[in-house]
Amino acid sequence: MTTQTLAITNVTLIDGLGGVPVRPATILVADGRFLSSGRAGDIRTPEGAEVVDGTGKWMIPGFVNGNVHLLDAWMFMVGPGTIEYLARWEGRYVEVIEEAAQLVLRNGVTTVFDTYNAVDHVLGARDRINAGTAQGARIFAAGAIVGMGGPFSADFHFAGRRAATQSFVNRIDAQFEAGVGHQLSLLPRKEVRAAVRDYLQRGVDLLKIAVSDHIFMTVGLDRSYQTFSRPVLDVIVEEARAAGVPVLTHSLSVEALETSVELGADVLIHANYTMGQPYPHELVDKIVASDSWAELQTVHEQHRHALEEAGSWAAVLGGGAFSENERTLIGAGAKIIMGTDAGCSSNDHLADLTEAEREDRPWTLGNDHFHWTRSMVEKGMTPLEAISAATINVARSYGKADTLGSIESGKLADFVLLDADPTADIRHLRAIDAVYKDGERIERDALPTQSLVTGHPA
Amino acid sequence: MTTQTLAITNVTLIDGLGGVPVRPATILVADGRFLSSGRAGDIRTPEGAEVVDGTGKWMIPGFVNGNVHLLDAWMFMVGPGTIEYLARWEGRYVEVIEEAAQLVLRNGVTTVFDTYNAVDHVLGARDRINAGTAQGARIFAAGAIVGMGGPFSADFHFAGRRAATQSFVNRIDAQFEAGVGHQLSLLPRKEVRAAVRDYLQRGVDLLKIAVSDHIFMTVGLDRSYQTFSRPVLDVIVEEARAAGVPVLTHSLSVEALETSVELGADVLIHANYTMGQPYPHELVDKIVASDSWAELQTVHEQHRHALEEAGSWAAVLGGGAFSENERTLIGAGAKIIMGTDAGCSSNDHLADLTEAEREDRPWTLGNDHFHWTRSMVEKGMTPLEAISAATINVARSYGKADTLGSIESGKLADFVLLDADPTADIRHLRAIDAVYKDGERIERDALPTQSLVTGHPA
Amino acid sequence: MTTQTLAITNVTLIDGLGGVPVRPATILVADGRFLSSGRAGDIRTPEGAEVVDGTGKWMIPGFVNGNVHLLDAWMFMVGPGTIEYLARWEGRYVEVIEEAAQLVLRNGVTTVFDTYNAVDHVLGARDRINAGTAQGARIFAAGAIVGMGGPFSADFHFAGRRAATQSFVNRIDAQFEAGVGHQLSLLPRKEVRAAVRDYLQRGVDLLKIAVSDHIFMTVGLDRSYQTFSRPVLDVIVEEARAAGVPVLTHSLSVEALETSVELGADVLIHANYTMGQPYPHELVDKIVASDSWAELQTVHEQHRHALEEAGSWAAVLGGGAFSENERTLIGAGAKIIMGTDAGCSSNDHLADLTEAEREDRPWTLGNDHFHWTRSMVEKGMTPLEAISAATINVARSYGKADTLGSIESGKLADFVLLDADPTADIRHLRAIDAVYKDGERIERDALPTQSLVTGHPA
Amino acid sequence: MTTQTLAITNVTLIDGLGGVPVRPATILVADGRFLSSGRAGDIRTPEGAEVVDGTGKWMIPGFVNGNVHLLDAWMFMVGPGTIEYLARWEGRYVEVIEEAAQLVLRNGVTTVFDTYNAVDHVLGARDRINAGTAQGARIFAAGAIVGMGGPFSADFHFAGRRAATQSFVNRIDAQFEAGVGHQLSLLPRKEVRAAVRDYLQRGVDLLKIAVSDHIFMTVGLDRSYQTFSRPVLDVIVEEARAAGVPVLTHSLSVEALETSVELGADVLIHANYTMGQPYPHELVDKIVASDSWAELQTVHEQHRHALEEAGSWAAVLGGGAFSENERTLIGAGAKIIMGTDAGCSSNDHLADLTEAEREDRPWTLGNDHFHWTRSMVEKGMTPLEAISAATINVARSYGKADTLGSIESGKLADFVLLDADPTADIRHLRAIDAVYKDGERIERDALPTQSLVTGHPA
Repeated sequence: MTTQTLAITNVTLIDGLGGVPVRPATILVADGRFLSSGRAGDIRTPEGAEVVDGTGKWMIPGFVNGNVHLLDAWMFMVGPGTIEYLARWEGRYVEVIEEAAQLVLRNGVTTVFDTYNAVDHVLGARDRINAGTAQGARIFAAGAIVGMGGPFSADFHFAGRRAATQSFVNRIDAQFEAGVGHQLSLLPRKEVRAAVRDYLQRGVDLLKIAVSDHIFMTVGLDRSYQTFSRPVLDVIVEEARAAGVPVLTHSLSVEALETSVELGADVLIHANYTMGQPYPHELVDKIVASDSWAELQTVHEQHRHALEEAGSWAAVLGGGAFSENERTLIGAGAKIIMGTDAGCSSNDHLADLTEAEREDRPWTLGNDHFHWTRSMVEKGMTPLEAISAATINVARSYGKADTLGSIESGKLADFVLLDADPTADIRHLRAIDAVYKDGERIERDALPTQSLVTGHPA
Repeated sequence: MTTQTLAITNVTLIDGLGGVPVRPATILVADGRFLSSGRAGDIRTPEGAEVVDGTGKWMIPGFVNGNVHLLDAWMFMVGPGTIEYLARWEGRYVEVIEEAAQLVLRNGVTTVFDTYNAVDHVLGARDRINAGTAQGARIFAAGAIVGMGGPFSADFHFAGRRAATQSFVNRIDAQFEAGVGHQLSLLPRKEVRAAVRDYLQRGVDLLKIAVSDHIFMTVGLDRSYQTFSRPVLDVIVEEARAAGVPVLTHSLSVEALETSVELGADVLIHANYTMGQPYPHELVDKIVASDSWAELQTVHEQHRHALEEAGSWAAVLGGGAFSENERTLIGAGAKIIMGTDAGCSSNDHLADLTEAEREDRPWTLGNDHFHWTRSMVEKGMTPLEAISAATINVARSYGKADTLGSIESGKLADFVLLDADPTADIRHLRAIDAVYKDGERIERDALPTQSLVTGHPA
Repeated sequence: MTTQTLAITNVTLIDGLGGVPVRPATILVADGRFLSSGRAGDIRTPEGAEVVDGTGKWMIPGFVNGNVHLLDAWMFMVGPGTIEYLARWEGRYVEVIEEAAQLVLRNGVTTVFDTYNAVDHVLGARDRINAGTAQGARIFAAGAIVGMGGPFSADFHFAGRRAATQSFVNRIDAQFEAGVGHQLSLLPRKEVRAAVRDYLQRGVDLLKIAVSDHIFMTVGLDRSYQTFSRPVLDVIVEEARAAGVPVLTHSLSVEALETSVELGADVLIHANYTMGQPYPHELVDKIVASDSWAELQTVHEQHRHALEEAGSWAAVLGGGAFSENERTLIGAGAKIIMGTDAGCSSNDHLADLTEAEREDRPWTLGNDHFHWTRSMVEKGMTPLEAISAATINVARSYGKADTLGSIESGKLADFVLLDADPTADIRHLRAIDAVYKDGERIERDALPTQSLVTGHPA
Repeated sequence: MTTQTLAITNVTLIDGLGGVPVRPATILVADGRFLSSGRAGDIRTPEGAEVVDGTGKWMIPGFVNGNVHLLDAWMFMVGPGTIEYLARWEGRYVEVIEEAAQLVLRNGVTTVFDTYNAVDHVLGARDRINAGTAQGARIFAAGAIVGMGGPFSADFHFAGRRAATQSFVNRIDAQFEAGVGHQLSLLPRKEVRAAVRDYLQRGVDLLKIAVSDHIFMTVGLDRSYQTFSRPVLDVIVEEARAAGVPVLTHSLSVEALETSVELGADVLIHANYTMGQPYPHELVDKIVASDSWAELQTVHEQHRHALEEAGSWAAVLGGGAFSENERTLIGAGAKIIMGTDAGCSSNDHLADLTEAEREDRPWTLGNDHFHWTRSMVEKGMTPLEAISAATINVARSYGKADTLGSIESGKLADFVLLDADPTADIRHLRAIDAVYKDGERIERDALPTQSLVTGHPA
């Protein structure tokens, strides 16, 4: 980290906390953290500081994505592509995860919360990035999802089990399940407690619980079950609390969402996914009254149209109760965070899509946060609210607001300079001039440092 | 019904209640009910009575099977055969159900509890038999299982959906789901309540709840979920109680079984099925202390060996935790009833099996109760206990002990005369001399009156 | 048959032979045959004759369909519906075939050539209709196709094998294969000869040879093989010739079609089906120069559009080389006959289709010949040519022109009276006033006498 | 190559030509070729020669395998493993092929004929080995098989198409089909000729023709078709002859084998594979009278037993008509060559097998030729005949006998020194002391130089 002070001057400051932008503002950075920020007249730029003239620019906090899968887990649901992707890069997952973390960093995302991944590999990349050995967005990782299976289980590409060797699929699934996979649903409470406790000792940053099942891709979209009984869920949450890690819940039905709120989950992953059932009124009240943050996954209107025209099943995710629930929560003033489920997509997988499906796809890392913020504004947020949802809110939801998510003194100096006003048009978030992480300007053109996934096939 | 008194004299009486057999005994029957029974010296045979000399014979109550599917639902799990069976007999399911009810009656089963079937059809057959329009064992029926899908859902022969017309599969599934199928898992509590209430108004005798899922045939045997959250389960049970019908639970894991006991279920269907997990000790205590009756499904040793040698997956049902659980409950003094899941099996389906698998198959109606009682003695019951479990216990569990299940004054005169002593060898239950239902001797050789399923192909 | 003479008077006569219609014409019928026909002035109506006043009507020969599958074999390719159809009507196929023969008769088709069916059943229906025991169009039948498998082989609904019992699928396949199925492709010549000879002794009217394979539904549309080597084909044709039955060939590629012509086939079934390859010029010349008749299968433009909009794979059959080949053969003056592959379609199967696909569907018996003639006029025939192709040409191709296919003295008195002029608009063929077979007026409204397939589900 | 003369002295010489071994013999090698060989007394070792004392050793020609697939094509039939193997090594197939060529060289095989592979990759490896850039057995390659599809076509792992991206499967299939795949079956003769001519210009060493189809893995083992009509086959052979390359035929039925002989094929690949039909007598005579060489694929008895006990479908390849045909051809004096279909097997694929299946597996490169020679002696050859079949015969069949396949003056000095007498026990071929190729001693322990496939997963 630099010891020289950095001063951003004459910039329009959007600090992430939702207040009116400050213009002109000066922001000082030292030792990788924000030193101070405020109206230009209130902040004195120290001598010898490196000055970046922010005239005509907007400064926002680095984006924080509350739900990614740096290895492309979305593909595991779709199916085709899973075997070849996991085989091609086997032994190099840490590198792929770093490539993903660089793709997002290049586009202004300075921190990501990875909520499902091959455990050791995502922790390996996290540690390498933290140590400065590798570049990339800062990673916090859940690793496995308690109660959910690996890529070749019925939760994802089940048909792939028959098209691959058993040695391979079992080896891969074990890397994602890490002893707390779907088999936990069969165990008595005592054994569940022991397994979760063992798992937490691997050093994960978060614990994600499959309150709902994830077998819809195998059995259809007309049912959703509770993975565990309530007493078992209580056991799992107890263990997470004892370990001091935030609790995330995966739910796919109104009942599972209600259960998640009752459990006191910190983050309700894809809270708008209720298999086409609009929220009952009482549930909305309950969410709003709770301490839980709702992660919403969203598809903006233009892409929804493209999906519909392409005949893609995914079109359903952009309409009906999915989007109605988004509007409801926004309207009710629920606490909302950004999450996208996006990953480092294989070019072969993308090539199977239509042009329309590929264009501004919400599940491809790099553009996903632009897609998300645009869609949230369509659904009822102001641009400033959308920016907060994509920065400080995520930090708060995961208990990282002391160091991340806004431009405030003492926090890590992660920020983005824009060439256009995002409050005028949320799509201006794409107009990135520069990205800083830990106070350091990112050489965006040098990222990713290695194009494994994004460069294949040559 | 006859008005002439019938006297069974000089018989060895096993009244079903578990006491020492009475020999010689006299039993009087009039108006379809037992008038009196006891030691020969204590009972006077009235003049004009029709006398059946029971010398050398044993008299037991008519068998009561606590869990059958008169249309062969077992096949729906296995898959192949489902489409052709349901198509071939479409429009004639009432006749098939009657054929099944006659097959069992011929073999001494005078009452059955059908816990999953095409609702209107099983109720139709029930009513025809009750009205005397058709012959057959007395039927009490649950119809649909709350939360479970039809034959072509992922709960059973899911692959069959792709090999049949959608019109057909949807039509058939609707007959089994009756508005309370697996889609209920998606609904909020209020809507679940309304759906269950509507369903109960169809006039079913029992309400069966899928506490566990039933998707293992589609997604594998390494997971089992809770179909509903506990609050939703409470709603369902409330409705059953309000309607005054017994509650049955389907569970496949230790957690779902514990939930079922906590719900106060009257009957725990296949209580020994816990996906290979032996019961935790506390659960056994809880079952024993509860008012719930455990229905056990069992495979005797000889058949288990046959299944193993034939490489049948079903072999697992006869060993491991499945049989260990049976022994545990018997040893702990739990309240146990007979149930077999048996149905009216298609000959084409049976022909696909090996000779070994067909021989004394526990899932083919007619012999299933012999199989069951034999296996229970292997697992620890005395013959008299096995007979009680297969008669009076079933009546008690379903709240029918005032009229059914034992040879006691005032009860329906359903009984079987045997030519050999079942307390000496439980397999002597097969030595049927005569079957009486409602005091009438059954013309066994005339059953079934019509061989649709059992006579196809000619 | 009647012995009273029947006179059709004042009618416009289209005798099927292609000449200018005669108006007014008189046609005399006696003993089920045409006695004479000609200009009204040339024919004297005998006294006592039953006179039908044909004023304002057109008289054409009864249609002759050169390629049907009275049990709905088209469905076997599509897949879903096959199991349920074959199971539901098992034991009643003769009745279904008769129902089909009545459906077509009602619509003016007095003779059909069934080129693939359950052998004994189609011969049974043929014999019953010939004997007057059952009503229906006159049937000539091939039964099995030499070298092709049954409904559950890879030639048709292969996936259905896994969704049905092996007993059932083997039993059904055996009824269609009759010892000359696809397994013949493995045998040495001598054994092929013996098998074909045995088969011919069953009394079939025609021998159809799979010159091409039929596995495209299983392996895709990008290949087509020769079922047999040329020496083996020669053996098969020799046996047919020795038995005195016409030879039909099934071919799906230009090479197989050329082979078929070289074999001297009487009828080239779906001669326009060459997997998307337009005919090489030399092949057209060869066909025209040969004695072979080309059966064309066709989709008219309006239906092709409907199929395209519905996203149906079958749309391809109405365009590209399929229709180009039709135009080529018509333009080159090849000898062409009507055939439709239509069958007695299940309502459940039809219900799975879109409205657009069902509307005037070419593969549903009853309207198929109207579809065909309309399409042929679109492809270049005159209306009179289309009528000849749908009547006398079929009779000629199968060697039945001495008794069938035109309105000529001595031939069987099969004819149709129309209320509108088909030469003005070929669609007027639908304007049927009356149908006569063997000189008898058909009670059209009474057909089918039994609605098994067409009345299910009620 | 060395210019110093090498002398092998006092060795027992088995020159591959079938005559009585010569002992003691001296063999001189210079410039990579045999200079002379004969009785020790007849050959003078020149001064300065490097002398290898062959006392107690046996010298045989380097093995020549007439049918391998250096990338493991056998796996493509089995299915699972195909996607991951082809994805994992994509971009490195040349290296994998070299690894395979080194595995065999290490075990004494100095030349292989690769009859199906990714065309450019196998030619690339061939050229690198020929140029001395890479080590390995000498490769002659066919590349594509005319009329056969790639790994993801219905000829191999068809189900894999649905578990992989279309981009990937199409890219891979194109590398194996090279414009002469199964789609050729649809084309008219003229277009077939053009495609084959183009293909031959790629520089392949051999032309292999799919006389039979290869779709049995998709459609079952009860049929086999002719890929092409005879006129088309004639066209293909003409092109091969014009290009001066040997013609190999793939056939799977007695008819296709007979056609292959009639075509004048140089090598009849797996001539014993006739789908369970024993050869008709006339066919045996025809083969013997022809100039064609029969490549037999064989499974020795011990392995056949292992396969049967493991329940492997492959057991059938070791018995019935498969082995009966082998004995028949050996007994009739047909010209026979070694071929094994073996490839560089993935460890994951092997791990899916039972221990019994893996042990001495005939389809894993390295031991396959030991398996083959052992089995041939079981089927009726003398050890010397088996050695000739595995050396000089292969060279003769492919027209390479002027330079390869025996220890004769002027030929390439490829040979193996053994520590035990293979004429006493054919299994002594495994007792390899040293392998020489082009007169150079191979550093066997250094092979393979890179363990990609054989070292994965680490």
